[in-house]
Amino acid sequence: MTVTAPVQTRPGSVDQAIIDCDIHNSPASPEALRPYLSARWRRHHELFGNRSYSGLYYPLANLNAARTDSWPPSGRPPGSDLPFLREQLLDRWNMEYGMLLPLLGAGRQLNLAYSAALCSAINDWQLAEWLEPEPRLRAAIVVCHEDGDLAAAEIERLGDHPLFVQVLLESRTHEPLGRRKYWRMYEAAARHNLPVGIHFGALGGWPISGVGHPSFYIEYHAGQLTSYQDLVTSLICEGVFERFPTLKVVLIEGGFGWLPPLMWRLDRAWRKLKDEVPDLKRLPSEYMREHLWFTTQPIEEPTVPGDFAQLLDDLAMDDKIMFSTDYPHWDFDSPEQAVPAGLDPVLRRKIMADNAKALYQL
Amino acid sequence: MTVTAPVQTRPGSVDQAIIDCDIHNSPASPEALRPYLSARWRRHHELFGNRSYSGLYYPLANLNAARTDSWPPSGRPPGSDLPFLREQLLDRWNMEYGMLLPLLGAGRQLNLAYSAALCSAINDWQLAEWLEPEPRLRAAIVVCHEDGDLAAAEIERLGDHPLFVQVLLESRTHEPLGRRKYWRMYEAAARHNLPVGIHFGALGGWPISGVGHPSFYIEYHAGQLTSYQDLVTSLICEGVFERFPTLKVVLIEGGFGWLPPLMWRLDRAWRKLKDEVPDLKRLPSEYMREHLWFTTQPIEEPTVPGDFAQLLDDLAMDDKIMFSTDYPHWDFDSPEQAVPAGLDPVLRRKIMADNAKALYQL
Repeated sequence: MTVTAPVQTRPGSVDQAIIDCDIHNSPASPEALRPYLSARWRRHHELFGNRSYSGLYYPLANLNAARTDSWPPSGRPPGSDLPFLREQLLDRWNMEYGMLLPLLGAGRQLNLAYSAALCSAINDWQLAEWLEPEPRLRAAIVVCHEDGDLAAAEIERLGDHPLFVQVLLESRTHEPLGRRKYWRMYEAAARHNLPVGIHFGALGGWPISGVGHPSFYIEYHAGQLTSYQDLVTSLICEGVFERFPTLKVVLIEGGFGWLPPLMWRLDRAWRKLKDEVPDLKRLPSEYMREHLWFTTQPIEEPTVPGDFAQLLDDLAMDDKIMFSTDYPHWDFDSPEQAVPAGLDPVLRRKIMADNAKALYQL
Repeated sequence: MTVTAPVQTRPGSVDQAIIDCDIHNSPASPEALRPYLSARWRRHHELFGNRSYSGLYYPLANLNAARTDSWPPSGRPPGSDLPFLREQLLDRWNMEYGMLLPLLGAGRQLNLAYSAALCSAINDWQLAEWLEPEPRLRAAIVVCHEDGDLAAAEIERLGDHPLFVQVLLESRTHEPLGRRKYWRMYEAAARHNLPVGIHFGALGGWPISGVGHPSFYIEYHAGQLTSYQDLVTSLICEGVFERFPTLKVVLIEGGFGWLPPLMWRLDRAWRKLKDEVPDLKRLPSEYMREHLWFTTQPIEEPTVPGDFAQLLDDLAMDDKIMFSTDYPHWDFDSPEQAVPAGLDPVLRRKIMADNAKALYQL
């Protein structure tokens, strides 16, 4: 029985003995369980809490995985208050431009029509409440990435607006991102000369690893590395860059230290197995070097000084790495921290601004 | 109706019109479809053929993913004829020892009791038909890896036999390999001082990637890289090496070029998130350097000469890399090809024999 109005009862109106075999008790707040946990698990309960087959956000107590100091004085949640964001981010670091990438889960809804409606609403909200009031901001078009047609329609609708400078989707899709269902989205993005930014996130229905669900958030955090390897492999092998030769893909928050070994592996495999993928005309690494861009947060930090320069040498992609903070998330990188000290000043300037200016035509 | 004897019919015994709405026609052989395929897809059909949600073996026409020249004159399948294996592998390259790793799917059965029975049978067959007739061979104990107790029992049964020198399981398990269900297996291996060898393979029930099922064998082939990253991350984060400090793990056919960037990433994550895994007392990379071994096939082949030496420098694991051929599989590496030319001769000797002698106490 569904009860939508208070149940009317008269004391004693039931004269039989009653046993209710299904009652759900619950603590008044998560804190109610604290006294019953040991110190070790109390700390875990506060910091990490319940994680099951998804487990996206850390730290638990802070909304949107936010820095503890990112709550605006207005009382609104982190990242939701333009004047405070201006002050804490754009003005504080004297930023020329900032790229909005709202991660509100719109693209991952199972009801695809609702997903598309939500994406349009978010994009209109970005325009009215963020882009128009603040000239330093640019935004990504959020799309229903699980349907190529719906995604293409939204790109069609907003793709020529000068303040929208890329398309945004999330990395953990339901199929590997090279597959045909996504091609109309890429076609639309390429036609409007919009890079496709792929931010870590979403839950395509699979565990984050190919060997099942890991236990810890730290594995999930490190597991971002393998999601990006999987999706890049798919984009290459499906021939997406042969089909859309002007398509540009930005891997946001995925690192890039994994790229050289993936290049070595895939180039070797291609030499032996190209019969299977005859549409690929060039080495996989050539497509990667031409079509992929990266953001810095979280950047690789090799233990041995000099290894970062070596990594950049291996990549040979100095024009493709772009600074990012991940504001207001807890693992924020400030401009001072974003790249290792001692980097060549020309390369540093490219990473901090010039590469993004060129890519997004700012 | 289940029919186990020929159906008795009399012509005309049914006087009604009949429509059968479920008849399954099929080609007499896979070749029957060839004339109907274009040249491009005919080649694919012969080389790769049907791949669905698993797709393990290439080339299609050759059993056990074998080299075309590995069929013995006896007519037995590749890898099944000891005299021919002796001639084609052990004698041909004058090998001191060879390590048997039968990949017969025993460990991945869903009926776990059957899995354990099959593993015992395979191990007894190895002893009677391979190890006892040929003194240069050593073998791995195949175990029902999806059940820690059953795996431990088999290790208990054979772990002290001098010809069994490691435990074998496959990389694509049902849970990430650090999780508790596998601990009794590790405990038994460590107690018998047997390294645990993890060969690529199995199908734990998940797609090979964290973003769903890729389309191509080449992606599956390159995807081995991410399975190994996932399982190493799990072994580290679950504290397996704190719990079993003498445990040694050999990653077989998984490469190792991905290890430095994983170290960088996980060390950085650990510094920020160690509250979640307080049992980890040291940097993730320290456990990796101490507890992991690797085989060479398929080795990373960086494009720029010198990058392989740089990779070995980054790893600082000269004692942990061991030569392997992958005989009789199609992507076999001969001793001449196994490591890049120009490698330091001392290191070369370590890789070709000394490291394996030390690890397996040969």
